Amino acid sequence: MAEKEVNPDENTIYVGNKPPMSYVLAVVTQFNGGSEEVIIKARGRAISRAVDTAEITRNRFVPNARIKEIKIGTESITNEEGRNSNVSSIEIALTTKK
Amino acid sequence: MAEKEVNPDENTIYVGNKPPMSYVLAVVTQFNGGSEEVIIKARGRAISRAVDTAEITRNRFVPNARIKEIKIGTESITNEEGRNSNVSSIEIALTTKK
Repeated sequence: MAEKEVNPDENTIYVGNKPPMSYVLAVVTQFNGGSEEVIIKARGRAISRAVDTAEITRNRFVPNARIKEIKIGTESITNEEGRNSNVSSIEIALTTKK
Repeated sequence: MAEKEVNPDENTIYVGNKPPMSYVLAVVTQFNGGSEEVIIKARGRAISRAVDTAEITRNRFVPNARIKEIKIGTESITNEEGRNSNVSSIEIALTTKK
């Protein structure tokens, strides 16, 4: 392979309810494994933790990582009673490319 | 005045711990009052509510508003015991300009 392919799933970290450092470690591991871009995704209340994850990664562990793009959106999810509700989502793309 | 001046403070909505609809109302009121740009700011756990505010505004009340820019950052705050701690922040700029 001449060029490294970007597998979006492989470079995506889904942020949930664990402490932020769990996700920071996952992001740092991706970068250290040779990824030039990592996408941090979260929904609902985990959105603030996704921002923490990006900021801690940049400020403490991967200083040459910069924010490439931030997207927000709304996703429709079906809850346990079968009803649809909307939840906000975020995608933060970090890159070490110049 | 030939051009309307943008006063950043006037067009900024700070999102805190109230229900999201309080802030949506504030943003919609700004747009209805003639503002072409509204900045939604939040820190810490209120970040997810800021995203909710932007999304509900766009999807339900101001369909011609689009996201102009999203910035994230880290602020240092001093707590009650006088110690510094870092908190993540977000700024979402919504605009109705073409």
